[in-house]
Amino acid sequence: MNTELNVSQSLTWRYAARRFSDKKVSQTALEQLLTMTGLSASSYGLQPYKIIVIENPKIKESLLAHSYEQKKVAANSHLLVLAADMSNVVTMVSSYMQSLAKTTGITALQQQAMRENMLASLANMDPEQQFQWASAQVNIALGTLLVSAASLGIDSCPIGGIDGRGYDEVLALPERNLRTVITVPIGYRHEDDVSANATKVRKALHELIVEI
Amino acid sequence: MNTELNVSQSLTWRYAARRFSDKKVSQTALEQLLTMTGLSASSYGLQPYKIIVIENPKIKESLLAHSYEQKKVAANSHLLVLAADMSNVVTMVSSYMQSLAKTTGITALQQQAMRENMLASLANMDPEQQFQWASAQVNIALGTLLVSAASLGIDSCPIGGIDGRGYDEVLALPERNLRTVITVPIGYRHEDDVSANATKVRKALHELIVEI
Repeated sequence: MNTELNVSQSLTWRYAARRFSDKKVSQTALEQLLTMTGLSASSYGLQPYKIIVIENPKIKESLLAHSYEQKKVAANSHLLVLAADMSNVVTMVSSYMQSLAKTTGITALQQQAMRENMLASLANMDPEQQFQWASAQVNIALGTLLVSAASLGIDSCPIGGIDGRGYDEVLALPERNLRTVITVPIGYRHEDDVSANATKVRKALHELIVEI
Repeated sequence: MNTELNVSQSLTWRYAARRFSDKKVSQTALEQLLTMTGLSASSYGLQPYKIIVIENPKIKESLLAHSYEQKKVAANSHLLVLAADMSNVVTMVSSYMQSLAKTTGITALQQQAMRENMLASLANMDPEQQFQWASAQVNIALGTLLVSAASLGIDSCPIGGIDGRGYDEVLALPERNLRTVITVPIGYRHEDDVSANATKVRKALHELIVEI
């Protein structure tokens, strides 16, 4: 852990990789990355998403047609697909409350109050609203994932421009009550990736903030 | 910078603060936090959002009515409001292309190709689609902001359960072509904040991931 870059260094080091080398991310590093991502903040702590981890080259290749043929979707160490949890929210809340009860000394009365509070705000979402809500949590996790990967020296490239429905079909996600939000190939930058040395283009602070 | 926590440490240290102390975040630390957040990944690098920085207690208090009276919206060092940029996408792209041209040695021909590529995917969004697209970028930035704050020893609490339209009105955001997505009070945890020592409840890795 001592070799991790700090947050500033990680944010400066990272970029959207265009081309990955053949080097594989080790199982240890992958688990570290996913564990860090799992520490992301989420609405009520519910983490309404799953991360699909794809190593199989044939599956990656069958996703190319749904990714505007962007080669990096197939040529990477692992392809991660971040998917919204579309399962029943009441079940989701119950499962969370069980974990919470196991982990903390929360009383039955407190549990009931929390459950009611959560369900009051979440139970009436229609599927599209649930997808938007879960997608927001996915994107917070994505922010965490990108900086976490960089801190471990792992390159990544978030790709929002995909046909999510095509991904769902190839990966049989509806059977698991999941729906694709975004995909992120990870690996190590190819030595010929010209983007690696490009200067970052970012808004100046005065363009980014409004002081009121 | 040497005192920054690394990414793992930051993710473990952070939690959703319930109550802040009276200690202020210094201007230097605030700028460091906002600069780090500005390094977030975003769709085509467009950063379609602004961060509203509020110190004025009266303005914070007038937001309570649109925040289910959650005291931490008023009692904090600074209240940050992350807002989607609802301005014209063509203008947004042109402004980005100007920065890109200044920063890098990109040719006019490359610029034209990039502009066309960006506009092909973005120019036809209706306002609601633009809000969803920009909100996704806001949430990636939020993930970056939370870990960045923690790395600087700054506490935070993302609050999605607010009346965004009420915020827009109080802050006169429509005049600036902005629309509220989420608010994040920042500061330092109060010594009586019981949440500070609560055990994190998170999905186990096997619940978070699907290996295909």
